[in-house]
Amino acid sequence: MIQIYTGNGKGKTTAAMGLALRALGHEMNVCIIQFFKLKNYYGEQKNFKKFKNLKFYSFARKHPHFYKNIKTKDIKNECKKAVLIIAGIIKEKKYDLLILDELNIAIRDRYIDVKKIVHLLKNKPKEMEVIITGRAAHKKILKLADLITDMRIVKHPYYRGIKSRKGIDY
Amino acid sequence: MIQIYTGNGKGKTTAAMGLALRALGHEMNVCIIQFFKLKNYYGEQKNFKKFKNLKFYSFARKHPHFYKNIKTKDIKNECKKAVLIIAGIIKEKKYDLLILDELNIAIRDRYIDVKKIVHLLKNKPKEMEVIITGRAAHKKILKLADLITDMRIVKHPYYRGIKSRKGIDY
Repeated sequence: MIQIYTGNGKGKTTAAMGLALRALGHEMNVCIIQFFKLKNYYGEQKNFKKFKNLKFYSFARKHPHFYKNIKTKDIKNECKKAVLIIAGIIKEKKYDLLILDELNIAIRDRYIDVKKIVHLLKNKPKEMEVIITGRAAHKKILKLADLITDMRIVKHPYYRGIKSRKGIDY
Repeated sequence: MIQIYTGNGKGKTTAAMGLALRALGHEMNVCIIQFFKLKNYYGEQKNFKKFKNLKFYSFARKHPHFYKNIKTKDIKNECKKAVLIIAGIIKEKKYDLLILDELNIAIRDRYIDVKKIVHLLKNKPKEMEVIITGRAAHKKILKLADLITDMRIVKHPYYRGIKSRKGIDY
């Protein structure tokens, strides 16, 4: 199945990580591919090495919106590599759970063509569970999904000017 | 801070578990207290032993709604024990992150008096992060919260008659 965690609320990536923890507990093979996230920064990443059934990739770690010195061309190249990896994973049928963290952002910002992803997802092994996170999920991705959760912000401390906190927000 | 993950969508417990994984990655001390969940059933539970900084409690494992032979009196007793543990944790200031998984359900179904929880939360150490999950969060709990995410169901395979799946749903 294909699961989407989208919306402007907190909990999209953590929900995906919780699912990884769950699947790993049942000895499933898990692959996490992250976009736009620094490596060795998020607490969960530091735990990935504890799990022998978990493979982790990270691409386009710095989003140009936050890092002004990053070139669109470089991000597109990184995303191209990611798509090749995803294509390989889908062909190999090696993983039971594939997490594409913040893929929605890569599509929204046109670093990855949604058609490529739709094509890959349509050809995924039936038994492979795919989790896609990130706000602003593309309607073509939503259409393919079996499960969609919209994480809605009701109250958020950032609006009170509170900064991102270690161990909680990263 | 106090974070609430509520709503009818999927991802509440997994988001809390992802937060545990994150906090543990930064060597924070984490305590997870679950209500209405079988033990040694959910994949994430099988991984808890990997983390020396993680303490796990489970109370009232069978909700009377699903297990007809369970007595309300026994559930209330279990919940009483849980409240004592929570009170102790808040007093001791031993944990950086306290997860109260499905506490909202215990309050909704009146196994736990919301006033008791409000009183405890108001006296929690400032540095302790508390995560509360479960649908139908009580308005008094929502009022106390710093962060609320409402997980809204947009599409869910259960509506198509698909059953809970190992490694994904538990």
